[in-house]
Amino acid sequence: MKQGHRYGLHRVLEPQGAMPQPAWRIDNTMDVYANEILIDVETLNIDSASFAQIREAEAGDPARIGAHMQRIVAERGKHHNPVTGSGGMLIGRVRTVGADLAGRIDLRPGDRIATLVSLSLTPLTIDEILSLDVKTGQADIKGQAILFESGLYAKLPDDLPDRMALAVLDVCGAPAQTEKLVRPGDTVVILGAGGKSGSLVLAQARRSAGPAGKIFAVEYGEAACDALRELGWADEVLTLDCTRPVDVLTAVERATGGRMADVTINCVNLPGTEMSSILATREEGTVYFFSMATSFTAAALGAEGVGKDVTMIVGNGYTRGHAMLALQLVREEPKLREMFASKYGA
Amino acid sequence: MKQGHRYGLHRVLEPQGAMPQPAWRIDNTMDVYANEILIDVETLNIDSASFAQIREAEAGDPARIGAHMQRIVAERGKHHNPVTGSGGMLIGRVRTVGADLAGRIDLRPGDRIATLVSLSLTPLTIDEILSLDVKTGQADIKGQAILFESGLYAKLPDDLPDRMALAVLDVCGAPAQTEKLVRPGDTVVILGAGGKSGSLVLAQARRSAGPAGKIFAVEYGEAACDALRELGWADEVLTLDCTRPVDVLTAVERATGGRMADVTINCVNLPGTEMSSILATREEGTVYFFSMATSFTAAALGAEGVGKDVTMIVGNGYTRGHAMLALQLVREEPKLREMFASKYGA
Ligand SMILES: NC(=O)c1ccc[n+]([C@@H]2O[C@H](COP(=O)([O-])OP(=O)(O)OC[C@H]3O[C@@H](n4cnc5c(N)ncnc54)[C@H](OP(=O)(O)O)[C@@H]3O)[C@@H](O)[C@H]2O)c1
Ligand SMILES: NC(=O)c1ccc[n+]([C@@H]2O[C@H](COP(=O)([O-])OP(=O)(O)OC[C@H]3O[C@@H](n4cnc5c(N)ncnc54)[C@H](OP(=O)(O)O)[C@@H]3O)[C@@H](O)[C@H]2O)c1
Repeated sequence: MKQGHRYGLHRVLEPQGAMPQPAWRIDNTMDVYANEILIDVETLNIDSASFAQIREAEAGDPARIGAHMQRIVAERGKHHNPVTGSGGMLIGRVRTVGADLAGRIDLRPGDRIATLVSLSLTPLTIDEILSLDVKTGQADIKGQAILFESGLYAKLPDDLPDRMALAVLDVCGAPAQTEKLVRPGDTVVILGAGGKSGSLVLAQARRSAGPAGKIFAVEYGEAACDALRELGWADEVLTLDCTRPVDVLTAVERATGGRMADVTINCVNLPGTEMSSILATREEGTVYFFSMATSFTAAALGAEGVGKDVTMIVGNGYTRGHAMLALQLVREEPKLREMFASKYGA
Repeated sequence: MKQGHRYGLHRVLEPQGAMPQPAWRIDNTMDVYANEILIDVETLNIDSASFAQIREAEAGDPARIGAHMQRIVAERGKHHNPVTGSGGMLIGRVRTVGADLAGRIDLRPGDRIATLVSLSLTPLTIDEILSLDVKTGQADIKGQAILFESGLYAKLPDDLPDRMALAVLDVCGAPAQTEKLVRPGDTVVILGAGGKSGSLVLAQARRSAGPAGKIFAVEYGEAACDALRELGWADEVLTLDCTRPVDVLTAVERATGGRMADVTINCVNLPGTEMSSILATREEGTVYFFSMATSFTAAALGAEGVGKDVTMIVGNGYTRGHAMLALQLVREEPKLREMFASKYGA
């Protein structure tokens, strides 16, 4: 077996010198290198922005959508939508663990895994599309994929339905970062606490802050706020539009008695919520931006603009142990499991 | 005099409910509120990323650059570059201290100050551009500006030339953050170490890391690299293009003997350097993005794509004591002072 680069540089075809993710085309020959993992793919979970674009381009026709997906992979060697720039994740069964990795990692042929790196950098072949769910963007296929030595994965749990596991794994970085950032006794504000990442963050923040901590969950919709009150982890649920920083500032000032948050975690899926996050946080506190809709300059200049000395952290999707922590949280908190089950089928 | 909001909300025109920084357009009527400061502007210091964009768009022609700047201010009521999202800062002379602030702050009419909040949120008028330095992005103008109650400023020091002080104050957040992040014995990689912020960061990193630390300065141009070697603070100066992550990875691997950086500080003024910053950093290390050209998604997805558990920090321009620290550094390090003097006149 040949030896490849741990970041998959040996697979980059075009342009030379690029990393696999930004590369236009990568080598998807299913000829495994000594430090790669070969996977028989079962299901592709196309990123929702990407799938929406393809569905629209093909007028919602499943056969045409499938052909479109196959064209992308044939052209680029990966399911990297050239319009949206995004990928997705996959589920599959390990076929081969490269000689250099065998024994060094916890995978064996036959294990079922989800990849935790984007499809936009994953060498992929699609032999056949077996079925396609036009609503969710999940496709069962016959095909293969390669995971690089640096590639992240999680073994699929036996005790959780695949779809639920996928939804949890998609946002598993958020609760893991929460566990790193929140200390006992902290005051924590969670923006967008009713969503997938938000509810995991809420459960973890309650654990990490402990009984002496104060947790404030912020959500927009009344129904979502009621659901959050049901969960019982927040000291108070605040019904607010996070794109309105002045409202958020005023409400958090009142709720915390002017103390403001030690840690604010932004899980909203809309742009324009940087300033709310900054204003909710105390001097020398921390803002964690999990939301991909965050603008770097809005955050940097926003904090400076109000003279706020806060540490602002970019939501890295990966933290060591993130998948385990998130799945464990769902196992241990029946209310969380119920919530995910109701959204993603039991 | 009318009473305004401490964060300047009373000046926001479009969209309603926004803060002055993210707002598209603010009210630049030079009619001072009771908690504002009115300034006669002398010099604008356009943010490096912003000025580079404008200069390129106008093919380096000073008259066209000036017209471009005036167009931005006419349209938005502030020098907020719609392409880069960034601003800059200014120096000027205090004309009026609002009635509510007089006596409560250390400013009087006639004092010369530099504003330490971004031009991207500062109400500004430009009556005339008197002169423009196409190399540095500094422009002498006739015009006025408003500082909100929450706005930061520094009185101009007597012992340093204005232009030099302005250049130093523009990027004073960077060395202050370096002082917070770098511990004795750390390995530090500085990308764009030859620029304004980069050279201040370099001097501070040398101090903070101490003799046991290792400092690697990365720069593009050969001349800039030679100048960095002259300074003598870096253990090694690496001549690299930071938009080529594989080159940066390889060079930093070699230079650090595979250890990689505990802290990487990005001071480059160009887009596309997120991946280089991430790859230069060790597992569980820290990347500090001072560069305003940083893309949030490129950073978040980039780190996940290579499975790198790094803490990525958004470069907040403000940290307590930042202006003093940066000016003091220039006073105490004659080589740094010389370098700024040669670029910004003695
Ligand atoms: N950093 C990473 O690695 C990473 C990985 C995956 C996802 N993400 C990002 O994380 C974010 C959240 O993802 P998710 O899957 O948790 O999304 P989600 O399930 O859709 O949750 C978003 C939540 O924000 C709420 N919300 C929307 N607008 C709001 C507003 N104006 N004020 C207050 N709350 C508001 C939504 O409430 P309603 O339902 O009532 O509208 C919803 O509860 C997304 O931006 C996603 O791109 C990041
Ligand atoms: N976060 C904040 O609050 C804040 C405040 C102010 C400024 N900033 C940002 O900080 C950044 C730096 O500002 P600055 O004033 O220090 O800029 P600067 O003086 O222009 O320095 C930029 C440096 O990067 C170098 N460089 C450019 N392209 C490179 C490449 N491909 N590889 C390696 N080095 C390269 C430049 O070298 P050459 O001269 O050889 O091209 C220069 O030495 C800008 O993006 C600015 O917007 C942030």
